[in-house]
This record gives sequence, structure tokens and C-alpha cells, in this order.
Amino acid sequence: MTPVSFTCDYCEGAHPKILQRLLDTNMIQASGYGEDPFCFSARAKIREATCCPKADVFFLVGGTQTNATIIDSMLRGYEGVIAAASGHIAVHESGAIEFGGHKVITLPAKEGKLEAVTIEDYLKVFHADEAKDHMVLPGMVYISFPTEYGTIYSRSELEAIKAVCKRYGIPLFIDGARLGYGLQSPACDLTLPEIASLCDVFYIGGTKVGALCGEAVVFPRGNAPAHFFTTVKQHGALLAKGRLLGLQFDTLFTDGLYFEISRNAIEKATELKQLFLSKGIPLYIDSPTNQQFPIMTKEDLAPLEGKVLYEVWETLPDGRFVTRFATSWATSEAQIEYLASLL
Amino acid sequence: MTPVSFTCDYCEGAHPKILQRLLDTNMIQASGYGEDPFCFSARAKIREATCCPKADVFFLVGGTQTNATIIDSMLRGYEGVIAAASGHIAVHESGAIEFGGHKVITLPAKEGKLEAVTIEDYLKVFHADEAKDHMVLPGMVYISFPTEYGTIYSRSELEAIKAVCKRYGIPLFIDGARLGYGLQSPACDLTLPEIASLCDVFYIGGTKVGALCGEAVVFPRGNAPAHFFTTVKQHGALLAKGRLLGLQFDTLFTDGLYFEISRNAIEKATELKQLFLSKGIPLYIDSPTNQQFPIMTKEDLAPLEGKVLYEVWETLPDGRFVTRFATSWATSEAQIEYLASLL
Amino acid sequence: MTPVSFTCDYCEGAHPKILQRLLDTNMIQASGYGEDPFCFSARAKIREATCCPKADVFFLVGGTQTNATIIDSMLRGYEGVIAAASGHIAVHESGAIEFGGHKVITLPAKEGKLEAVTIEDYLKVFHADEAKDHMVLPGMVYISFPTEYGTIYSRSELEAIKAVCKRYGIPLFIDGARLGYGLQSPACDLTLPEIASLCDVFYIGGTKVGALCGEAVVFPRGNAPAHFFTTVKQHGALLAKGRLLGLQFDTLFTDGLYFEISRNAIEKATELKQLFLSKGIPLYIDSPTNQQFPIMTKEDLAPLEGKVLYEVWETLPDGRFVTRFATSWATSEAQIEYLASLL
Amino acid sequence: MTPVSFTCDYCEGAHPKILQRLLDTNMIQASGYGEDPFCFSARAKIREATCCPKADVFFLVGGTQTNATIIDSMLRGYEGVIAAASGHIAVHESGAIEFGGHKVITLPAKEGKLEAVTIEDYLKVFHADEAKDHMVLPGMVYISFPTEYGTIYSRSELEAIKAVCKRYGIPLFIDGARLGYGLQSPACDLTLPEIASLCDVFYIGGTKVGALCGEAVVFPRGNAPAHFFTTVKQHGALLAKGRLLGLQFDTLFTDGLYFEISRNAIEKATELKQLFLSKGIPLYIDSPTNQQFPIMTKEDLAPLEGKVLYEVWETLPDGRFVTRFATSWATSEAQIEYLASLL
Repeated sequence: MTPVSFTCDYCEGAHPKILQRLLDTNMIQASGYGEDPFCFSARAKIREATCCPKADVFFLVGGTQTNATIIDSMLRGYEGVIAAASGHIAVHESGAIEFGGHKVITLPAKEGKLEAVTIEDYLKVFHADEAKDHMVLPGMVYISFPTEYGTIYSRSELEAIKAVCKRYGIPLFIDGARLGYGLQSPACDLTLPEIASLCDVFYIGGTKVGALCGEAVVFPRGNAPAHFFTTVKQHGALLAKGRLLGLQFDTLFTDGLYFEISRNAIEKATELKQLFLSKGIPLYIDSPTNQQFPIMTKEDLAPLEGKVLYEVWETLPDGRFVTRFATSWATSEAQIEYLASLL
Repeated sequence: MTPVSFTCDYCEGAHPKILQRLLDTNMIQASGYGEDPFCFSARAKIREATCCPKADVFFLVGGTQTNATIIDSMLRGYEGVIAAASGHIAVHESGAIEFGGHKVITLPAKEGKLEAVTIEDYLKVFHADEAKDHMVLPGMVYISFPTEYGTIYSRSELEAIKAVCKRYGIPLFIDGARLGYGLQSPACDLTLPEIASLCDVFYIGGTKVGALCGEAVVFPRGNAPAHFFTTVKQHGALLAKGRLLGLQFDTLFTDGLYFEISRNAIEKATELKQLFLSKGIPLYIDSPTNQQFPIMTKEDLAPLEGKVLYEVWETLPDGRFVTRFATSWATSEAQIEYLASLL
Repeated sequence: MTPVSFTCDYCEGAHPKILQRLLDTNMIQASGYGEDPFCFSARAKIREATCCPKADVFFLVGGTQTNATIIDSMLRGYEGVIAAASGHIAVHESGAIEFGGHKVITLPAKEGKLEAVTIEDYLKVFHADEAKDHMVLPGMVYISFPTEYGTIYSRSELEAIKAVCKRYGIPLFIDGARLGYGLQSPACDLTLPEIASLCDVFYIGGTKVGALCGEAVVFPRGNAPAHFFTTVKQHGALLAKGRLLGLQFDTLFTDGLYFEISRNAIEKATELKQLFLSKGIPLYIDSPTNQQFPIMTKEDLAPLEGKVLYEVWETLPDGRFVTRFATSWATSEAQIEYLASLL
Repeated sequence: MTPVSFTCDYCEGAHPKILQRLLDTNMIQASGYGEDPFCFSARAKIREATCCPKADVFFLVGGTQTNATIIDSMLRGYEGVIAAASGHIAVHESGAIEFGGHKVITLPAKEGKLEAVTIEDYLKVFHADEAKDHMVLPGMVYISFPTEYGTIYSRSELEAIKAVCKRYGIPLFIDGARLGYGLQSPACDLTLPEIASLCDVFYIGGTKVGALCGEAVVFPRGNAPAHFFTTVKQHGALLAKGRLLGLQFDTLFTDGLYFEISRNAIEKATELKQLFLSKGIPLYIDSPTNQQFPIMTKEDLAPLEGKVLYEVWETLPDGRFVTRFATSWATSEAQIEYLASLL
């Protein structure tokens, strides 16, 4: 029997409604490169969902590509981007940001989250440094929502970061590869329009939230850098059949599907969390979103062998493992029950 | 009524068999980043179809991205790539090659095709130049098959180019974004295994030949550059749900589907060609593949207004238009007949 | 006996007055990175000589570096620079511009000179192209004064180019590696202040005009890009002991030394030209500056063997050689006479 | 009266013997780009001084440029360079390494020095990481000798680092911008040939050790990367009048001048150290080279106001200042006595 996988939130294909739309529209002829009716419709729906009637919306294919393209488009050559030392762009993107010539300026984070005070202290010291012209100018702040550790920023935390950015005149970029899972967390006190209003650019992750691929980049106030389309192409991030991306986001933003399926991941993650705690398995981080990090012993894990898949995040000095179990739009009750039956 | 479009070969979605496979496999859980059973199976089939049992096969998303990634992975920093002045990488990729730090060294081409003698002359002069260390070292030859003008290289032409490359110790890269349409042309005297044996890297285009997206990069003799996977990721060209690409190529290389649907495009293009000629409309280039370039007058084009879409390639001094009509796997007899009824 | 060299204009050390100043000031302690009294004084003198009281002036070390730094600082990532196909940045800088991510967009030139109409035609066609967003945006025009062929632009030619740049909103950059030799040509109808007023950035070449090294970059209207200093450092073009550069330009712009020594080169080149013509040796190009291009036969060159050095530019189909003889600030009457005695 | 400066080791011009040689050789005509007799002679002397008869030696202009060029020439696109978090390339080079597309992988250091165990631990964890193909491959180790804090590696420390590099198959690069000052420290148990034998590339700093400018890059075993000359040019680091660099290094490596003048800096630094300690002023770091870091109070510094210049490195929580006083080849006894008279 095939094992059940909790290794990530991109194990399955796409939400069935997306596949159905693909089938229904397949032979309709459409223009390429995002100039098709599906993209136009998806943009309109995203503008509405974000309460940003003037937003510039672009559809890119994947996360690393989107991060690299946005950052490169908004920074000048001599600028770098501030990120958590544990941030995705700092660690797991094979140097895609540096490939564009930009330094990732890493700052210490707490459970994956940058604090406003950390950023401000860095900027204050930087701008007071007599040698600053010999250093990389911090030209942007990058955070992810949720973070690598599944944690989310509260409204006041995000407002504080935005205020620091404003004081120093640099844009704030929110990587929303898992945005839906953040917004649907019961711990979240932010809405999608609020996210949009508190940053200069963000993206709505599709790949991890029900799409085959795709990330919707939003410049909330029509503030896309000049010639962003060309920059996207230059980065190899422009899909010829843009309809594939437009159709998916159009579907996800019809009747609140994006939020509905995100909610499923959160409900299942909450069940996972309770399951682990009920078995006396502690959590490494109290994640309120779809990634859970139980600390498991060899003995805990033995019954899962060949039956349930997960990721090992880290080995603790005492030999226990920090593991990651991710739920998604596709996680079923049966999968949770199966895991419960084994633990 | 919606107009019928001959503007390009990526107007529709995907071949129905691909959509069916997507439906059938949607909820199967699979690993990401190309480590899934669909990719493994597609690689095996491509190795078989190319008669390259040791080939390294990677699946990337789109053409510009694939060109930039391959070129950057195979060149050193001080090297550039030789291409036809009309080549896609030289003109229509927004500087994606230069973004990776490499010069595109353009040479004059004939109907889109580089000649071996042109390349050899350039290399001879270059290596005899006393100032050559102050110049960009030509480190690769890039050609496309078919070219931007729909033309294809004959076996002897390709052998001659390969021989020049070998003499100068530089790799030959074939951009096969429309490879199927080239191979299925009655004018083609090359097979897929021969293409593979006559170059150092090439790719099998999916986007323009029946897939939603995807290009299959083949290093025929297991000669992928070290850490090519990481380079792909660094270029933002690694798809998280690699299954989407694997599944499509697996389908296209099952029961010869790739060739079968390519043949449809060629048959329809041949009908187009005959249609134009029968109406006294001359062809700018005698293209043997799926792109046709009729020279049309204002009067010729008037009846198509709002009914049939095409591209204007160029305006001639006498006011006539070089237009492009592209067929594809999806072009139907009815579409050709509709056009015929209007002309 | 050592042969006499006419191979280039950087065969000797520096003008003796520069060496004397180096000796006189050697043990004075000064700040680094261009913040020393020599640089301050040189900047003031250059502002005066260019009639640009608000000019931003920076001192860089060499030509390729200066071209790459200026171009990268003024272009956005998606932009390229227009240059003559024979331009230095297009041919002899080892891809330094592409290293910064920018395409060199080459246009045909006449005797090394770009014509305003050629640039305008290119820009017109580009901006009318429906596919222009898939292409590199032309973001700057680069010309050199004098050109690779020793030719110079007339005032009306330069005004016409500037007018095109203005119409399209892109800056004009003049590479003045041999600026003095251009300005002192009897054929030149432009002054240094006029050069400054007709472009957006240019540099005054020191390396080829009497200095050990050094190029003075001038943004005539205080229009240096933000953080240009940091960009210079990032490009590895910032000299720690900036005094070396400041002192040289301060000396060259004291009592018109720069112009005086440039005049010597022109006088000697004029003698060279008359010498060749008097011997029945034709000129490949009628260069009005310090580089002369006599077309010599094997027989013409035989007596120079081991006695006089020059460069071979090109071999003509009839076997004759286009040679280059360069004079400089350091060329002496005796050297010319020696050559005359041999021919 | 002009204040006496201890701010850095590049306050003065060049050692008088260098200026004299410049005068003596000024009108000798020589080839450009490092192909002159001065460079040839300097290379021979450096090969002898390093006991590396097969060494490839190149002369570049400045430190940042040299670091960026070496690193870019030895890394592939997907590789990064390991450096101390306080290393020059990580902090004070305006992102010159990232400009070339490479990540600086920073590791914690002790008084500016990387420990072999830190590097090995990092490499071990990296290569054991399942996600390593998604990360920047560590492809080189960069250290400086002496470090930013004036500290030096002992022979056993350097051997240990070299052994780690060897185990992981990556080159070791030693930034020797202040190499002379390290080698002449009484605390140093390494010789120049030993330095050469324990790394894969290093450079002998000229700018800070008596030259106007210039760094001599040494690939000890003839192991320069292919086409390094072209890479140097591409980075804008190739000096046209290479003689200026060759002549300086030729002079510095005649009769042991480089070592002799380095010794002066060390003697003066030792006097400085004793002076501070004798006044009860503690040292932040016990630096055995030419940079001293006394911790001074406002009261300590008051008498220096307008008379002696130094750098403030850092302000301690208790309000005292970590200052830097640098000596050099040019520091005189009189300058030390003047400082002593004020403290």
C-alpha cells in the first residue's frame, strides 16, 4: 500500500474545480503571456478580494522565481534585501537572489519572524555608520506570511514593520507562498485587504494552495515597477500559456474557494496538533498554520515506517527529531485517522 | 462569433489525453521537484525515443527560461554564445542571456539558419586575433530547430555545424521549442535520435506541441553539467509540482503521441501553403514546418478582419505585409476551411 | 637598439609634471577613496574647464571599468545600451557590459561613428514593435569621441544624436578615453564645455592622455545616479589611494596641460599623415586625430622590421595591411624623423 | 598645523624607491596589459620569493576588485564562498561578490579568524542536508591574513583549515591585502613560501604596503583558472599601463624591500601598543600586526582633538570607544612621539 504523505503541501495535483475548468476551456483559443480572458478575470477578482481596485496583478509560475523577480525589479544594483536568517530566500533558493546581484542581508529572527525592532536597529546602525557607502544599502524588507516555521505576524507586528520601512523609505515585500493558510488560521487577526494595505508588494501563493502551479503577484496601489513585464520575461518567469495561471486564480477566487480550501488545511492541522499533544508528543513551535513540528523519538516514529511520510527538520542534541507534518487543501479526515491509528 | 486564430502555436490548452491523465492521477501523492514517478517514467521514455540510454533529462517550464538556464550552466563567465542574428535568444528574450552575464554573439543567418562556414569563419578569425583575450570567448553554438522562420537544418548541414563545434571544442545546443514540427516535416531528413547524436544538449518543446507548459532538456550522453539541478533552481526554473511536467511528457511520449500531433500541424500547414499559393498569394519563405509566411496586401487581408487572426511579421517597402500563420497540434480542418472561405 | 613604438597611446609612463607632483606630495597624509585635497582641487578645475559648476566628478582607474560602471549605474536591469557595432564596449571589453547584465545593442556605424538617423530609426522601429516588451529596452546611447577609428563627431552630428536621445528620453554617454586628442584636432568644432552640454555623462580620459592611469567621470548637471560611489565600489573601481587619480587630473587641468599635451599628439599625427601620403601610402580612413591608419604593403613594412612598432588592424583582400600608428602626448619629433628615415 | 593621521595604512603616496623607479623608467616604451619587462621581472621575483617556480602571477589594481575577480573566476555560478561574518568581502565591499552572482556564506569568527572546526562543521552539516541541492554550494573558503582585526593565523591553524578544504575538495583563498604586516609580526610562525604552499590562491597587497596601488595575485602551482586574463578584463580590473603595477612589485621585491618596510609598521605598532598600555589604556584585541585597537574614553581622546586622527571602530555599552590606530611602512618615530606627548 502507498504510504500517506504529510511531507509537504504540494503532494497532490490541483483542486478538482481547477481541473474541471481546464477541461471546459481547453480548446478556447486565447492570447499568450497573460493577455487572455482568464487572466483578465482573475486580476479583477483579486483586485476585489484585496480591496485594491488599482492593483497591478501578475501571474508567475513558482516561488523562487517570484521572489527573485520581485526583488530584482524593486532594488537598484547597489541594494540588498533584509530577510530573516531562516528565510526562504536566505537559505533554500540556491542563491537565486544573489544571481540577480543582490545580497540577502540576514537578521536574527524569532520563530521565523523578524521583529520591527531588529530591523529598525539594523537600519539605524547602518545609516549611522561612516563606512556605509562601502556597504550594501538595505533597499527592501522581505518577510513571509506564514514563515518557514508556520508562524504568522499579528496585525500590530506587521504595522510596526511597515512603519519602520516607511520611516526609512524602503518597500516591504510579503512572500505569501502559503498566504491562504496564514489568513485562515484562527490565530490570524489580519484580512487579505489588510495584508495588501500593509505592504508594497506581496504574492498569493497558488502552488501550495490548490493550484498546479502559479503565484499571483500584487502591487496593491498600481505601483509595479516600470517594465515589470519585461523583467518577468528576462527572469524566465513569463508563461507562454498564461491562461493556465489565470484560469487557476480565477477559479480559486470564485466563491471564496481559495479561503475555503485553506480552511481545510488549518482544520486538519489543528487535529494533527491535538493528536500529537494527546499522545504526549511535544511541539517544537506552536504553529497556528498548516505546518506542525512535533518532536518525536525513534520509538514514536517506528510505527510510521513505510506507512506515513513526513520530513525531519532537525535532530536535537538528545537524539529526538524535530519533524514536520504539513496539511493542505487536499488533506482528508481519513489520512489524519490513519496517522492516529498508527501513533 | 469568436475569430479563429492562427497567431501562434500556443493558443489552446493541452492535448486532451494530457488533461485526462491529469484528472486520473490528480490525488496521487508524489514527491516534488522532479522526483516523482511521472518524471521517472517520462525520462525513461525520452531516453528510449532518443536512443540515448544514458541521457540526463530535466523538465523545465518554458523556453526563455530553458535557454537561459542551459546556456548559463554550460558557459564560464568569460564565454558567450554564438547565435543567428535573428535567433530567439538574440532578439525576443528580453536579455535573459545577458542577465546571466553572457554575450550573445550574433552572426548573419540565411532564412534563420546559421551556416557551418559562417561559424567556422568567425571562430577562425577570432582565434587568430591578437586581441582575442580582450574579447568574449565563443563558448557554445546555439541554433533552433526549426528556426524563427520555420526552416530546418538538413542532416548534412547539422553535421557540418557539429563538426565545426568539435574542431573548436565547444558544445552545440539545439533549441527545440518546436522540435516535433521540425521532425515531422516531409522536408526533414533527420530523426530524433540523430538530433540527439549531433548535439551536446537540446530540448524537446512541450509548450508549443500540445502541453500546457514544459520543455524536456536532454543531455544525450549523460553529460549534464555538475549540479545542473541547483542551477535550474537558482534560475527560478524548478517547478515544485514537477509531476505536472513529467506527466505531460510521459503522455506525449506514449504511443508516439508527440509525433502524431506534430504531424497534424504539418498537414494543416501544407494545406495553408497550398491555399495561399492557389490564391496567388506569394510566400516570404518556403517554410516546410508549421509556420507559414504569406505576403499579403491590404486587400487580401480585408476579408479576414475580425474573423481570422494572424501576426504581421514585417511591412515590405511596397506596403505589403509579411504575415505569419501558425498551425499546431490543435488546428482543425474546419479552421482551414473557414480561412479558405474568406480568402 | 630598442625599437620605437607607435603601437598605442599608452606606451610611456606619465607626463613629467605628474611625476614631479607625485614626488612633491608623496608624504602628505590624505584620506582615501577620493576624499583628499587633490581630488577636491581636480574636481573644481574640471568643473571650471567644462563650465559645469554643478558637475558631479568621480575618478576611476581605467576605461573598461569606467564604461561598465557608468552604464550599469544608469540602466535598469531590463535596459541595454546602444553602441556602434565597432564600439569598444561591443568588441574589446571581454563582455564587461554583459557581466553587469546589460545587452549591447549594436547598430551599424560609418567610420566608427553612429549616425543620428540610424539611432532614431532603430528607436522608432523598436517602439512600434508589438513584441517590444519581449525585447531589451534601449536605455542609453554610447558613443566614443574620438571613435575606434580616430574619427570625431561634428557639433551638428552630436546635436542631432542628443536630440534623438532627448526625444526618446534616454541619456547619451560619451566615452572620452581619448577626449583630448579629439578636442585638439583641427577638424574639431566642439569645445569641452560643449561636449559637456551635449551629453548626460562623459569621461575625460587620463590613461591615454598623459596619466599613469585614471578617467574623470563627469555628470555635467550634478546628475550622478544616487549612490554612484557605492556602485563604483561594487564594480571594484574605487581606488583606495584616490589621491593618485586626483593629483593627476589636478595637474592635467592646471594651466591647460591636458590640452597642450593633446596638441602635441595631433601635431605629430599630422606629420605622420603627411609622411605617409608623401610616400604614396594611402590612408584607410582620413582620421583627424592621433591614430592614423596607413595601408601598407609587405614591401612598405619591410624596412620597419625590428625598428618601428605599429599595429596591424586588418588584412585587405589584396594582401595589403591596414596598420595603425598612434601618436600621443609623448611622441617626439625624433621618433617621427626616425620613421621617415626608414620608409 | 596638519594633524598626524593613524586612520589607515594608505594615507601616504608610495615608498620613495618606487617613485624613483617611476622617474627613471618613465619614457621607456612598453607594451600594455602586463606584457612589459617590469611585470615580467616582478613575476620572476615573486616566484622566487614564494618558492613557487611555476606560479601564475597577475597584477590587479585594488583589493575589492581583486577579491571579486578571484572569487568569480574560481567559482561556478551555483557556488558561494565561505567567509568570516566580519570578513571584508562580507561587509565592506558594497556587494561586489554578489554582483558577480555569488553568495557570501558567513560563519562566526573569533577575533576575525575562522576556525577549521567551524568550517568543517558547516560543510559536514551542509553535505548531510537532504535539501542541499536547493542551497548554495560552498565552493571556496576565503580568509584574510591578517584579518580585519589585525590577528593572524598560526601555521597549525592554517594547516587545519587547508586540510578541511582538501577533504571537501574546495580551494582556499587568502586575502593578503596586508600580507607583509602579517608576515613581519613577531607572532607569525609562517613564511611567505609557507603561505603559498598552504593555499590555492592568495594575493600580496601593495596598496597598503608601500605602493600607490596594486595587488599581486599568485596561483602558487600554476593553477590559474583558464582565461583568467579575460576574466580580469571583464571585471574592469586590467590596467592598460600594467607597467605601473609591475614596476612597483619589482621594486618591492628587490632586496627584500617589501619585508623591510613591513617591519617598520610592526615596530611602530609595537611601540603604539606599549604606549597605550603604559597609559593604562586597554586594548580591545591583542593584535600582533599594524592595526591596534585601544579602548579609549572621551577624556583619553580629548587631547588628540584636531591633532591626531584615528578611526572609531565601535562604541561600547559603557560609552567608551573602540578605536583603531594603524601604522604603516611610512609611520615615523616622530609621529609616535607626537602621539605619546599628547596622551
